[in-house]
Amino acid sequence: MKDIIQAGYNPIVNLKSKIGNQIMHILVTNDDGVQAPGLLALAQAMRQVGEVTVVAPDRNWSASGHVKTLERPIRVTETLLADGTSAFMSDGAPSDCVALPLLGFTEKVDLVVSGINPFSNIGHDVTYSGTVTAAMEAVIAGVPGIAFSLASQDKPANTPTDYGPAGQVAAVVARKVLEAGLAEGVILNVNIPYLSAETMKGMQVTRQGLRVYRDALDRRVDPRGRPYYWIGGEAPTGVNEEGTDVGALFAGYVSITPLQLDLTNYKAVDVLKNWEW
Amino acid sequence: MKDIIQAGYNPIVNLKSKIGNQIMHILVTNDDGVQAPGLLALAQAMRQVGEVTVVAPDRNWSASGHVKTLERPIRVTETLLADGTSAFMSDGAPSDCVALPLLGFTEKVDLVVSGINPFSNIGHDVTYSGTVTAAMEAVIAGVPGIAFSLASQDKPANTPTDYGPAGQVAAVVARKVLEAGLAEGVILNVNIPYLSAETMKGMQVTRQGLRVYRDALDRRVDPRGRPYYWIGGEAPTGVNEEGTDVGALFAGYVSITPLQLDLTNYKAVDVLKNWEW
Repeated sequence: MKDIIQAGYNPIVNLKSKIGNQIMHILVTNDDGVQAPGLLALAQAMRQVGEVTVVAPDRNWSASGHVKTLERPIRVTETLLADGTSAFMSDGAPSDCVALPLLGFTEKVDLVVSGINPFSNIGHDVTYSGTVTAAMEAVIAGVPGIAFSLASQDKPANTPTDYGPAGQVAAVVARKVLEAGLAEGVILNVNIPYLSAETMKGMQVTRQGLRVYRDALDRRVDPRGRPYYWIGGEAPTGVNEEGTDVGALFAGYVSITPLQLDLTNYKAVDVLKNWEW
Repeated sequence: MKDIIQAGYNPIVNLKSKIGNQIMHILVTNDDGVQAPGLLALAQAMRQVGEVTVVAPDRNWSASGHVKTLERPIRVTETLLADGTSAFMSDGAPSDCVALPLLGFTEKVDLVVSGINPFSNIGHDVTYSGTVTAAMEAVIAGVPGIAFSLASQDKPANTPTDYGPAGQVAAVVARKVLEAGLAEGVILNVNIPYLSAETMKGMQVTRQGLRVYRDALDRRVDPRGRPYYWIGGEAPTGVNEEGTDVGALFAGYVSITPLQLDLTNYKAVDVLKNWEW
């Protein structure tokens, strides 16, 4: 198994080269809202790769829904990112921020990138992740989609998050996808360790790993004698298995997991067909 | 391919038989809220199979988030369903309504069922479906999970939804799962055609199908001259392919699709490993 693509490889090279003679159009979005530092880092990184349009939600949706807005109209407003560059913000959901441009709000889109999420999206996280969902939305519409997440949960407490190295990785991956193309229906879920570009070990193509949840129910009683509940317990940990997203991050590699929209468990299909219904 | 388990088979038989000598404990939940008629139908159906506890959200979450609530405590309140039976409602998300009982709020749970969602969850829908997500939450915690959805979008306009036949199907499927067991990590996504029990053709084990989206951007201008956008176009249609959830519903069968939490596209893993990173 060629799990490790190239040990010790530093991905941050040769960013400025062209992709043929074509200018590539890249849509940048996220689910944390247009003001999130990770979005700015991603937009800046993508400007090294192609023409960038930012369309992001006007607020943080990371604990909310990702459904297309069909019941009400959507407003789109011009705004500025913290580096003074222009962006669009929408009062729709993250999915709308992908749907609108792909339906013609902006000119052609060759690639949709989403993030940079401040925390990793590994193992079962991908089932819930708004960052991944935005990339899925693109793939459903036939445009390649990449989700970027930074494992900044590993950073020292009370320090601002440095998205620089993650942005550089994002540029490398986006360029590679634009050059080589992705098979239909494939989403890339990219997780980046919280390391400097020099200390990152390289890129690793992985499968989705497992998380171990150690939730515990914490029942308390309020001052009026009524119970309430915290979901407590230790934070979930990843199962550090080689070849998985979890294992790659643990080992200091960028994890690149190709995902798909087909959730069918084909083995179980065969088993269930033999049940007597 | 034994796609059609038993043509013309009427699934609604022999509901009252016992599963060994054990009383099975079934948690009933949904994402439409505790007052949804589909929840009542599911609770009533499950009472034919085992001991039932209902824990459902106090409001409709179907267009909202499905993340576990970690930032604030959760309240759980006793309430009554429309048939006078007792239920718990929580101010947490649907995932919390699964997590709390599995973490010990109620006694042991052998099976989690979610629904009955008033509309089908087929093709790419499953990626977004709160009904499916609730069943996933159970499976992550090691308990079998089944999502039930009724294709009532096919019913005559302005008639109340009849969940009766769907409830009967749910009882058959739940009993079968409790008897035979599901492999680890397998979620069942069950879609029921809007037909009487007599006209349903039987059960079909399927794979996840495809939907064709025909969204179009509809730009309008408000009375103050500012643009706003509707996501318009025709409703998405399913690709009527044999062996899929879409095809089964089209043909009048109950569709039973085993899903998994692993979204890895393994073919793409091999392809990407050959890329020069």
